[in-house]
Amino acid sequence: MTSSAQNTPPARRDLWELPDVSGLVVGVLGGTGDQGRGLAYRLARAGQRVVVGSRKAERAEAAAAELGNGVEGADNAECARRSDVVIVAVPWDGHEATVAALRAELAGKLVVDCVNPLGFDKKGAYPIRPAEGSAAEQAAALLPESRVAAAFHHLSAVLLQDPEVERIETDVMVLGESREDTDVVQALAGLIPGMRGVYAGRLRNAHQVEAMVANLISVNRRYRAHAGVRLTDV
Amino acid sequence: MTSSAQNTPPARRDLWELPDVSGLVVGVLGGTGDQGRGLAYRLARAGQRVVVGSRKAERAEAAAAELGNGVEGADNAECARRSDVVIVAVPWDGHEATVAALRAELAGKLVVDCVNPLGFDKKGAYPIRPAEGSAAEQAAALLPESRVAAAFHHLSAVLLQDPEVERIETDVMVLGESREDTDVVQALAGLIPGMRGVYAGRLRNAHQVEAMVANLISVNRRYRAHAGVRLTDV
Repeated sequence: MTSSAQNTPPARRDLWELPDVSGLVVGVLGGTGDQGRGLAYRLARAGQRVVVGSRKAERAEAAAAELGNGVEGADNAECARRSDVVIVAVPWDGHEATVAALRAELAGKLVVDCVNPLGFDKKGAYPIRPAEGSAAEQAAALLPESRVAAAFHHLSAVLLQDPEVERIETDVMVLGESREDTDVVQALAGLIPGMRGVYAGRLRNAHQVEAMVANLISVNRRYRAHAGVRLTDV
Repeated sequence: MTSSAQNTPPARRDLWELPDVSGLVVGVLGGTGDQGRGLAYRLARAGQRVVVGSRKAERAEAAAAELGNGVEGADNAECARRSDVVIVAVPWDGHEATVAALRAELAGKLVVDCVNPLGFDKKGAYPIRPAEGSAAEQAAALLPESRVAAAFHHLSAVLLQDPEVERIETDVMVLGESREDTDVVQALAGLIPGMRGVYAGRLRNAHQVEAMVANLISVNRRYRAHAGVRLTDV
């Protein structure tokens, strides 16, 4: 009996049993842009301590005051220093320079890239493919002392920022190299009512997740929607 | 009043009012593979006339006999000739050669590419990026006399082929250059109970839709699921 019990594999851990992230401070670089403001607002409204970062501290502080819910503002470097988990929500144009400049401040931290490299022309949006494969892989290459994950790509900034919207019914595809890190990001996504973080692969599979936003823009134009993604059978 | 009425734009056509496709014959190239068999089975079960194609007529006929529901089998060229709409469901390895060889038979027809160019190694699946941008764009380049759309990428072949499964609750992202063509493909997807075809952009945005299957494979491994995609707010 004992021997048989010893040979039995350990009970499979519940995949939805995620860590308690309530004590973590979340920084949002690019926290004065639409996506960054929206994420900061939702996380703070859910009770998380949030610091928004911007190039200029005054702009970040002004955005923080507008967002309420205890959000603080700081320049990007100070935002990174104060935070345990740092969401990168800067425009693609500024991605490389912003991330590279914060290598020291982001060392040892979990960095969550949510940037979608897109171009626009008269036919609409199309994806840009960074040399590293994706924005997230570019961040990983620039931040060898950080752990980099990718998530929060498919959220409508309009819905995120609208205080009348109580629930955002969507899944957040979470990518990363370590289960521990993706679990933390899934837990953060799960704080927002209606939202669920789902593990969706390694960083080498981030490009198509980032690029899918071009399709959601086409969907939004055709159907006048704020489309998001749900994964079925999960 | 008259002048004002004339200046009023015409009533917006209901985006979900799709054409009657019941009279169209649907061919499935690669109809003896898992994805092709599954699609053929679901469309035939929904009442559509379906011809499965294979390199050898006998293999196609054998698959057709197993699928029942009036499915016919033929070699790929004959399958293309007999069909109004031709779904390309061949393995990525054979995509270029199969499509190029059928240029004459596919001329004037609507071709729906559902091929996902993927590679596999010990870390799982990863997308392959064809020189043309995507499998669908490769087909479009090889078939200048056809109209090419892309769809049916994210369906589980297991669910498609399981006769016990009554409904497949998922959206089919449909890409193409002409509204008329994408409407036809959306209508075909909508024949399958639980399934909905949603316009999701032009062919230049097909790569990430094809590549997303690598993420769904990661999801399936982690959660032991047959994951699909639903678009929210649409």
